[in-house]
Amino acid sequence: MSSLALPAVDAGILAKRARIVERLGEVVGARWVISDEDELRAYETDALTAYRQIPLAVALPSTTDEVSRVLAVLNEEGVKVIGRGAGTSLAGGALPLADSVVVGVSRMSRVLDIDTANRAIRVEAGVTNLAVSGAVDHLGFFYAPDPSSQLACTIAGNVAMNSGGAHCLKYGVTTNNVLGLTVVLMDGTVIELGGTHMDSPGYDLLGLMTGSEGQLGIVTEAVLRILPKAEGARPVLVGFSSNTDAGTCVSDIIGQGMLPVVIEFMDRPAIRICEDFAHAGYPLDVEAMLIIEVEGSEEEIVEQLAKIVAVARDNGAVHVREAKTPAESAAIWKGRKSAFGAMGRISDYMCMDGTIPTGRLPEVLVKISEICEGYGLGVANIFHAGDGNLHPLVLYDVNDPEQLEKAEACGADILELCVEVGGCLTGEHGVGIEKRELMTSQFNATDLDQQMRIKTMLDPQWLLNPAKVFPLAGRPEPVRLKTSEAA
Amino acid sequence: MSSLALPAVDAGILAKRARIVERLGEVVGARWVISDEDELRAYETDALTAYRQIPLAVALPSTTDEVSRVLAVLNEEGVKVIGRGAGTSLAGGALPLADSVVVGVSRMSRVLDIDTANRAIRVEAGVTNLAVSGAVDHLGFFYAPDPSSQLACTIAGNVAMNSGGAHCLKYGVTTNNVLGLTVVLMDGTVIELGGTHMDSPGYDLLGLMTGSEGQLGIVTEAVLRILPKAEGARPVLVGFSSNTDAGTCVSDIIGQGMLPVVIEFMDRPAIRICEDFAHAGYPLDVEAMLIIEVEGSEEEIVEQLAKIVAVARDNGAVHVREAKTPAESAAIWKGRKSAFGAMGRISDYMCMDGTIPTGRLPEVLVKISEICEGYGLGVANIFHAGDGNLHPLVLYDVNDPEQLEKAEACGADILELCVEVGGCLTGEHGVGIEKRELMTSQFNATDLDQQMRIKTMLDPQWLLNPAKVFPLAGRPEPVRLKTSEAA
Repeated sequence: MSSLALPAVDAGILAKRARIVERLGEVVGARWVISDEDELRAYETDALTAYRQIPLAVALPSTTDEVSRVLAVLNEEGVKVIGRGAGTSLAGGALPLADSVVVGVSRMSRVLDIDTANRAIRVEAGVTNLAVSGAVDHLGFFYAPDPSSQLACTIAGNVAMNSGGAHCLKYGVTTNNVLGLTVVLMDGTVIELGGTHMDSPGYDLLGLMTGSEGQLGIVTEAVLRILPKAEGARPVLVGFSSNTDAGTCVSDIIGQGMLPVVIEFMDRPAIRICEDFAHAGYPLDVEAMLIIEVEGSEEEIVEQLAKIVAVARDNGAVHVREAKTPAESAAIWKGRKSAFGAMGRISDYMCMDGTIPTGRLPEVLVKISEICEGYGLGVANIFHAGDGNLHPLVLYDVNDPEQLEKAEACGADILELCVEVGGCLTGEHGVGIEKRELMTSQFNATDLDQQMRIKTMLDPQWLLNPAKVFPLAGRPEPVRLKTSEAA
Repeated sequence: MSSLALPAVDAGILAKRARIVERLGEVVGARWVISDEDELRAYETDALTAYRQIPLAVALPSTTDEVSRVLAVLNEEGVKVIGRGAGTSLAGGALPLADSVVVGVSRMSRVLDIDTANRAIRVEAGVTNLAVSGAVDHLGFFYAPDPSSQLACTIAGNVAMNSGGAHCLKYGVTTNNVLGLTVVLMDGTVIELGGTHMDSPGYDLLGLMTGSEGQLGIVTEAVLRILPKAEGARPVLVGFSSNTDAGTCVSDIIGQGMLPVVIEFMDRPAIRICEDFAHAGYPLDVEAMLIIEVEGSEEEIVEQLAKIVAVARDNGAVHVREAKTPAESAAIWKGRKSAFGAMGRISDYMCMDGTIPTGRLPEVLVKISEICEGYGLGVANIFHAGDGNLHPLVLYDVNDPEQLEKAEACGADILELCVEVGGCLTGEHGVGIEKRELMTSQFNATDLDQQMRIKTMLDPQWLLNPAKVFPLAGRPEPVRLKTSEAA
């Protein structure tokens, strides 16, 4: 059972399920509408697996026009819609409601156009993140945002959640790498936002749509910025005898004008768990470890690593291991990349996601330990340190309702701490259902009201992914359109 | 006389001018309210000097709180507001209306906080663009967007117009470099958007505000991304015997994965005018010239320039001059930077601003020549070629009403051509009043309606910079609030 409330189920909608399924089938073809309970189970949750809910039905359109007609039908019938990419949201962003129809974009996965002269690629929104880089790799280009789930997650989901990844320190998050979108609004209207060019005239609805968590429209196509690949890249692993030393080292590297591609931070528990699992050769006698990767030509790599190691030694580094071969580079990354799997082997965990100003890291880590101890829960910290994006993994037993509740309360305390020191509730996972009720710690009533007015303007009935993002209390009344009576 | 219509003047507002001036004086101090006609002349125009209009009054608040109280008074009185940075808009974005109050941010020009560890600077919005880089120069950082007017233009104006500049090829435009904003809405509400961190939760009103041309709120503070300065930078000058060769060279450089900081394109008339003025040593026997600048360490610069020169020679370059000394670099840039001044010496001109896909450059230049010939007007082309941002300078006599009309029609034809080949009405100058009526060539009624709904939501009376951005026809009726009767 979830401890987060879902809106009351609309019995009227459930009663006309057969008609809705039939109407959807007329648009996308009956075989692309799922209404069998067993088959619906595949869509009952996302990567926030503590929450499960079977939807009314699932529709899988294959074109923008079909998405438009599907939404027009559901708008007319007053049915809630949950957009779905690959269902990899860690914040419950793709969790269905009982009286909702899930609209999935998985059948829309074609690469439509590659334009290296304008550094752009046009894709259907169901294409996976990694497939975008795959499509331009032979041309010497790549797509920068790289969420951990990049093998599975779709561009539709990346745009909805404004996804990040380790490379975002240097290249920005999704919103910095999207040039244009085709979006279907809840009433079926299709709008084109942006294009291959910077600064298109008029208001920036492109930025507004990016990160709106499927609440303003469903993205069906995207024009993405592609970047030239660097000649090479290499990591160095640096160990410290305190979190403070490691934290100060990160501030110094960036403050002195260096911009590595990646700075990853792992605390003692995280190092130990990853090393046990991956035998990556991590030092076990340190309190904190940084993995810092630089890129460029061989000369640039050598020069940058030398500067970084000097800064690390100035900050009391007790262990430095520069990768000398591709195999050593791979070993250093193997441990980090297996972190979630390694953690999952020893315990269930809740992966929190907040940001903090880099300079506050040491005190925040101490306070996170105290918070978790207070709930009797373990914690390991992994951190995109360069851009202040913290990922505490709170360890608990998913089958113990009391522990779930404790883990959620513990996670909420951690995120409120992030806001308190000047950071944010979310770094790259979004708000979803997980952090909905915490939004009041980040925003006052005026801020939330401005945001909700935009939701109401574009989706007057609040049908698109409605249980998410905003606290349930204080929402405007949805404008109820007259529900169609004709089939 | 302007050929673009302004809305009818509200005589009721003019009649209560004395009361409005008095109420504004109570907020900002009487000395910071300008109502004398001679003094108002300083605010009657911006850099689109063909249009002039003295406003009702000018208010110069010094804090966010004063801006809030000024807007609350004007909202209550139903008075239109024109936000003003330094008045350098080339699109008439800061042109006053007779029944409007200009709210200038020039007194708000303090640097509030520098945070190198988080690569951020917090400033009041009246600070100039160049002063931002100046404040962090000694720390080895800079602020990337660099409009030609950077000595004068303010961050408030940069945010309002989403300003660009030559460096935007590598570093993006203003929206890619703004992390947070303090904004005052028309009713006096103060909202905080974003912060020093990526991906703050909720909807991206930060992106929406950036580039909204002073129509959604007045920006009073900004948190900007600062970047580490490169070790060095150097240009190479490459001449071609046809526009086609130069255009293909640009496509090839970017398509092969090189990313110079700047690629500037000048056609034969532009080269000749700049050389006559600046004696920069430009080749006079070429049809087109590129100035390509790369940055990095000395080794990187040498390596990149070698690759670029090879691509240029493959594309038939007939003239290559690599800068060997700082003096030679300066000479190459001197001509380009004096372009507008040099042009102004021989003729009045209208600086157009549109974008095109890089690959369409040769045919677009031919068509621009034909369009201008059709109107009997001269034209010179300067072009941020790397990102497809074209700046045709249409030459005319500002004191000849017939020529002004021709130049405007000619400019409109050029921008419609940009849209036709898949580009945009504006690359970095914004829509303002200049391109207002052309918005229908870029957007259909649905697109414009979505944008105008956002304007209405945040400014129901349409008081903020109302004559701009959207065509006069097809606007929603402003929601008229009851005007205050009490003084």
